[in-house]
Amino acid sequence: MNFTAIFVPELFGTMMLTLLGCGVVANAALPGTKGNGGGFLMVNFGWGLGVFAGVFVAISSGGHINPAVTIGLLANGVEELGPDIPATAGNAVIYILGQMAGAFLGAVLCWLAYKTHFDADSDGPTKLGVFSTGPAMRSYGWNVVTEVVGTFVLVFVVISFGFAGAAAGQLGPLAVALLVVGIGASLGGPTGYAINPARDLGPRIAHALLPIKGKGTSDWSYSWVPVLGPIIGGIIGGLSAAAIF
Amino acid sequence: MNFTAIFVPELFGTMMLTLLGCGVVANAALPGTKGNGGGFLMVNFGWGLGVFAGVFVAISSGGHINPAVTIGLLANGVEELGPDIPATAGNAVIYILGQMAGAFLGAVLCWLAYKTHFDADSDGPTKLGVFSTGPAMRSYGWNVVTEVVGTFVLVFVVISFGFAGAAAGQLGPLAVALLVVGIGASLGGPTGYAINPARDLGPRIAHALLPIKGKGTSDWSYSWVPVLGPIIGGIIGGLSAAAIF
Amino acid sequence: MNFTAIFVPELFGTMMLTLLGCGVVANAALPGTKGNGGGFLMVNFGWGLGVFAGVFVAISSGGHINPAVTIGLLANGVEELGPDIPATAGNAVIYILGQMAGAFLGAVLCWLAYKTHFDADSDGPTKLGVFSTGPAMRSYGWNVVTEVVGTFVLVFVVISFGFAGAAAGQLGPLAVALLVVGIGASLGGPTGYAINPARDLGPRIAHALLPIKGKGTSDWSYSWVPVLGPIIGGIIGGLSAAAIF
Amino acid sequence: MNFTAIFVPELFGTMMLTLLGCGVVANAALPGTKGNGGGFLMVNFGWGLGVFAGVFVAISSGGHINPAVTIGLLANGVEELGPDIPATAGNAVIYILGQMAGAFLGAVLCWLAYKTHFDADSDGPTKLGVFSTGPAMRSYGWNVVTEVVGTFVLVFVVISFGFAGAAAGQLGPLAVALLVVGIGASLGGPTGYAINPARDLGPRIAHALLPIKGKGTSDWSYSWVPVLGPIIGGIIGGLSAAAIF
Repeated sequence: MNFTAIFVPELFGTMMLTLLGCGVVANAALPGTKGNGGGFLMVNFGWGLGVFAGVFVAISSGGHINPAVTIGLLANGVEELGPDIPATAGNAVIYILGQMAGAFLGAVLCWLAYKTHFDADSDGPTKLGVFSTGPAMRSYGWNVVTEVVGTFVLVFVVISFGFAGAAAGQLGPLAVALLVVGIGASLGGPTGYAINPARDLGPRIAHALLPIKGKGTSDWSYSWVPVLGPIIGGIIGGLSAAAIF
Repeated sequence: MNFTAIFVPELFGTMMLTLLGCGVVANAALPGTKGNGGGFLMVNFGWGLGVFAGVFVAISSGGHINPAVTIGLLANGVEELGPDIPATAGNAVIYILGQMAGAFLGAVLCWLAYKTHFDADSDGPTKLGVFSTGPAMRSYGWNVVTEVVGTFVLVFVVISFGFAGAAAGQLGPLAVALLVVGIGASLGGPTGYAINPARDLGPRIAHALLPIKGKGTSDWSYSWVPVLGPIIGGIIGGLSAAAIF
Repeated sequence: MNFTAIFVPELFGTMMLTLLGCGVVANAALPGTKGNGGGFLMVNFGWGLGVFAGVFVAISSGGHINPAVTIGLLANGVEELGPDIPATAGNAVIYILGQMAGAFLGAVLCWLAYKTHFDADSDGPTKLGVFSTGPAMRSYGWNVVTEVVGTFVLVFVVISFGFAGAAAGQLGPLAVALLVVGIGASLGGPTGYAINPARDLGPRIAHALLPIKGKGTSDWSYSWVPVLGPIIGGIIGGLSAAAIF
Repeated sequence: MNFTAIFVPELFGTMMLTLLGCGVVANAALPGTKGNGGGFLMVNFGWGLGVFAGVFVAISSGGHINPAVTIGLLANGVEELGPDIPATAGNAVIYILGQMAGAFLGAVLCWLAYKTHFDADSDGPTKLGVFSTGPAMRSYGWNVVTEVVGTFVLVFVVISFGFAGAAAGQLGPLAVALLVVGIGASLGGPTGYAINPARDLGPRIAHALLPIKGKGTSDWSYSWVPVLGPIIGGIIGGLSAAAIF
């Protein structure tokens, strides 16, 4: 029952997220696309609307599509992770497995949609950048700080939606989507705002496994930052929200 | 009765879609316009808000304004294509005829609105690009794949709106519009996101028939891609949604 | 009674419209501003959100803030122009007088807000462009056509909102605002989308009267186009909507 | 009781505002960020969505997150500043203290999130510009006028939301956020739209106290403009709204 109630919607929701999210980076960065050089705001809207689609698709499981949200809600002490889904560690693991599988599959679909542009001539870091985040200036400690701050905002404000009652209820997935547009525009500058371990690690595994032409390294030395930072930020967000709201 | 219940609203809704959608490309691409070089995000918003206007205008027939949506809903197994409109093959044909007629008329109106700029000096492919999509890199197989993926997202997520209950109901046509902004930004890079056979074929016929100054070829050799790809994508989206939701 | 029920809200609503609308053009075009060169999409959002603010401010009179909407509703045959306001020619005149006064005042406030940048060195057409629209390519007949098409879309779709019931009701002024963002992006290329006689004529009178440094001509030879075109478009929109919805 | 009912939500709400708002300026302006040169519209969306997040977080106190709103509501003569919070001068002081503390803390978090980019080589005014506003052309009198006009729009229109009934209620914090996007795009050109004394003064104090590498002056000679202008504008907005609505 948990397979259909949690794993399936989280998989398809997170697949939508990374298909549209990685897609907008491909459009902005890969050579020869129609949106090449479309700007950072276009990338922010692409990821935000990926969240919009993903939350709707996964609405029956609460639309987490992000392990940092799942863990943050656990830290917050909620009784249910989604409608009629008890907040147990076991259920949280099913959420995260679905999110990881979906994030991987979305990146594969993105690669297929942009196949001719991945085959065109560009350097390895550009291609990796479609799949996973990387730091503008590599400094593991500060990069973690940036991801912690961004994910704290995400989880803290998403939990505040529940306390805003009707106003948030009317907007629903749009509120989360707009929040992610804002976090991207405002806090995406130093690390490209993973703020979601599955969104970063799933596509990175896809990058490592797929036969992408001239793909170069998957940069595993950085890969722990967009996993650890969001988890810490999600926990801080969940605990802060429990203290304040 | 089906003429006024289906054909007329779908015609006017799809006319709004291509008038505003082709219009934003004209503004971004034709010489001397005030929005020349306005960027891909402006184009994404233009098409998305064309969907917004079109769905409102056609709301009495369910606001498909896209044969891939009509066919995807049939594949999904819905009982009604719109309020009190049974999901029969005959009705689907009336939907598609209205959509084709409207897409053609919207492109004609766009040409009239931008007449002085079509008369100004620019090359044939730029002028055709206002009417219909074309590939950034011509590769029929992969171009079909991109259109399949984009239309799958459109139909799958639109159907999910119905299962999201109140949250989606509050947003209505805005949700569809934002989804199309997102698909454009994220998956429009390789083929310019037709994701709608009528949106592409109707204006292409208008391009072939209208006395556009220095218009060049209508590129019929590519014209089947933005018809077949969206139909396949719509069917996959409808079937997937039937399996999951 | 009609003074407070119609004139005052329409005045303040239209004042908000031209203050924010002319303001975004000033920001994009005048020398030395922080948004200089901000792009056409920024201008589209500025005008659209000017509509958003203006409709809220004038909501007690129905939020027309545009003579083409008032006239289009008359042509449509509505019984009321706003809540408890009968659709009489006399009331329509009060609407339009309020709109003209407000459009004038908003342009004056815009000039004050951007005073130091109007005093800086730029050419006359740039300064006039903050106040009123002008054609990208002067061709009175086709310029009228463009304004007719744009205003037809505005009035036709706004009337369709009323027939969309709950979905539009939830969005209210946001729906009109987004529609104007879309019309601007898609149909603003040839003439700068007046689509509102008051929005163009009120600020043009302000331009003629204000002691703007180095202001040049107010281009009265073009001034009838953004008055006549929107009126024709509004009537066509109102009549079409009456025939279809 | 007023501490938890007013001070805490206003602190966290305003912290979100300046964290996201200063963040988007850091992203657009500091060297080496991924959003460098992202444009004024991106900055407008960053601040607007900072308001969106902040109003949700502070919704239990009415979501002012701006002393000009608090003072404007007092001038308007409201009976309550928030749900069950009487409109007394003493409560207003608690609002403003929470807003100042939150604006300061948000700027500190922004500095931490962008630490590596603040350490990189850029000039003092660029770094100060992340924290506080400054004039495009220094002219204290006209700079005050611009801030008065912008804050008048903010407070006047926000109060109009309350009189728009259901339409505004459905949108809630989104309506305020979009209004701020619009004010920024339209009236942000001359002074960078503080329109909020806490948003400017709190981060300026943070700039003065934090050990920012190569930070230069905090420009205290301008600091009174974005405090006085918004207070005057808020009072005018509140009084005008009392006269009209």
